[in-house]
Amino acid sequence: MTLSGRRAGVVTLKDVAAAAGVSVATASQALAGRGRMTDATRERVRRAAESLGYLPNAMARGLRTGRSHALGVHNQSAAESLGTAYFRDFLAGAIEAAHRHDHDLVVLSSDTHRPRTTAPRVDGVVVVDPIANDLRARELMEMPVPVVAGEHVPAHMPPCAVVAVDHATALRTVLDAAATAGASRPLLAAPDENSGWGELLREIVGAWCAERGTTPVLVSTQFGIRSVEHDRSLLTPVLAAHPKVDLVIGASPFAARGALEVLRALGRTPGGDVLVAACADEPALAEHDPAVTAVELPAHALGVACVERLIEILDSDGGAQDALGTVRTIPAPVHLRASTSGTVAAMR
Amino acid sequence: MTLSGRRAGVVTLKDVAAAAGVSVATASQALAGRGRMTDATRERVRRAAESLGYLPNAMARGLRTGRSHALGVHNQSAAESLGTAYFRDFLAGAIEAAHRHDHDLVVLSSDTHRPRTTAPRVDGVVVVDPIANDLRARELMEMPVPVVAGEHVPAHMPPCAVVAVDHATALRTVLDAAATAGASRPLLAAPDENSGWGELLREIVGAWCAERGTTPVLVSTQFGIRSVEHDRSLLTPVLAAHPKVDLVIGASPFAARGALEVLRALGRTPGGDVLVAACADEPALAEHDPAVTAVELPAHALGVACVERLIEILDSDGGAQDALGTVRTIPAPVHLRASTSGTVAAMR
Repeated sequence: MTLSGRRAGVVTLKDVAAAAGVSVATASQALAGRGRMTDATRERVRRAAESLGYLPNAMARGLRTGRSHALGVHNQSAAESLGTAYFRDFLAGAIEAAHRHDHDLVVLSSDTHRPRTTAPRVDGVVVVDPIANDLRARELMEMPVPVVAGEHVPAHMPPCAVVAVDHATALRTVLDAAATAGASRPLLAAPDENSGWGELLREIVGAWCAERGTTPVLVSTQFGIRSVEHDRSLLTPVLAAHPKVDLVIGASPFAARGALEVLRALGRTPGGDVLVAACADEPALAEHDPAVTAVELPAHALGVACVERLIEILDSDGGAQDALGTVRTIPAPVHLRASTSGTVAAMR
Repeated sequence: MTLSGRRAGVVTLKDVAAAAGVSVATASQALAGRGRMTDATRERVRRAAESLGYLPNAMARGLRTGRSHALGVHNQSAAESLGTAYFRDFLAGAIEAAHRHDHDLVVLSSDTHRPRTTAPRVDGVVVVDPIANDLRARELMEMPVPVVAGEHVPAHMPPCAVVAVDHATALRTVLDAAATAGASRPLLAAPDENSGWGELLREIVGAWCAERGTTPVLVSTQFGIRSVEHDRSLLTPVLAAHPKVDLVIGASPFAARGALEVLRALGRTPGGDVLVAACADEPALAEHDPAVTAVELPAHALGVACVERLIEILDSDGGAQDALGTVRTIPAPVHLRASTSGTVAAMR
């Protein structure tokens, strides 16, 4: 028996995609309730999955055994991520919720390249920020137990139940505030296609721009690299080549801070002729000059909500199957600060 | 692709057996270091496995060795304790050490009165601050797996391996500094006999006093109650009844802060005619007037050391038995501040 429980003859996402006549990415998005496609396409993929008996995560493969009353939490680089308030808060919320239900909370050992040596003995898993090229995230999402993703699942990964921050509402609040201040040409620096969060941010900004007959400038960063220098080096040539950009949105605080430095070096005035915002707040952003508008990610509440959702699925009859592709969102406060409140002075 | 690495073309145990010219059962035993066979046979199987690039099935490996590669951590009130820097730091250290050895870290569900519904699936357990009347701590320490206690084990609990802060050296540094400033009649407010830490602090202060032909005044607090009011109400009658006490040592920062308030209410001058210290530091103690002398408990280092010790025991032959009753200590910095550095002015 393999870790994933996959055997010859088991229907894969690839089989579903082939039967529906779409790409694997589209099939994945269709089942996850995401992506841009017609309702007919989405329905065709769903029917193909149903008729083939496709069961991602093997959620309902009848492998129900005794409950261990232990829930796993996976993060791409868990030990390193403990250095961030985001994962510490998420974990505290997850532990509190698990213990409230008298479940142990297993902080799974992470390694992006090396497979696990043993299957974790857990009833279900929460994958925090599923990253497509994180081998262990994928391994866990293919296990025969229910999986809840804390944030959206990127294309090419098995679908599961999602609990996510309501980035759409939050980011639109930022975009609308920037538009009120006169901005109309946004640049978004967000993690590449390995991150479902990055994909979603691109979709949101893309849709907002489409409504205004424009397109955003996009810069791809790498999820998990927490370095202002890294983002600065990515932004320098792009901002130099696009002098008409009047709003720079960094997914991370590092990208926003990198943007401030690059814009200044190009002779521009953040909060003056160009606005700046971040999709994830940190205390330092409020201290900047100008103070940087940012979305506050409620990590503790997300940790609680992911574990509550997982237990709800475990406690329901056939709930695992029903939960596939469902998305629950929790609201995120937006802190509008000086970096987006001034009037964009000089359009070039 | 399934990330368990299992698909067509992957080397199986059957392939290894065929290459070595032995049965699958013999190949399995040879690789597990078990079974009756010649060294030559075992070596032949190993060479075949190596040359074919055979990676034993993950789940089977777990079952064969009996190791789950998961380590438990228990704290009397884990979820609530996440509100303290001590347990957050301990846990971060434990997770980092466990993951460094590719082990999962299980934060065990805590309840001081209700037994567990299932045995945790772990190779061993770290019990942080074992408390005698904590039902689950006792339950875990009676399990047939190695246990490491993070801090001393109180009387009447099953023995195990201990990793603890070197309280004796740290507390004697505080006592000697106070003696240099003229103090000779200490009061200790420490957790009752349910706490091995409390027991140890009483032993240390008792021995120090005995060397000087005196005895300390002792106040028993309850471990885990983090309230200045609670400790103040315990200290008020005792300090009123013992006006000659010239050094008050609180095990917790709460006891030290409670002592400051009670002493002032009694017309005494902390840092003047009476000295005050805590056996556990927190940032607020350095901000007090006078700043309070305290022992810095290296919680992160203790979390690392407990997990390292547990893995060392698990990896050794019969090490669990040898480890019983052993104590390893890690040093604790002492911050001597104004509350013990002045000269005790007025002996009454």
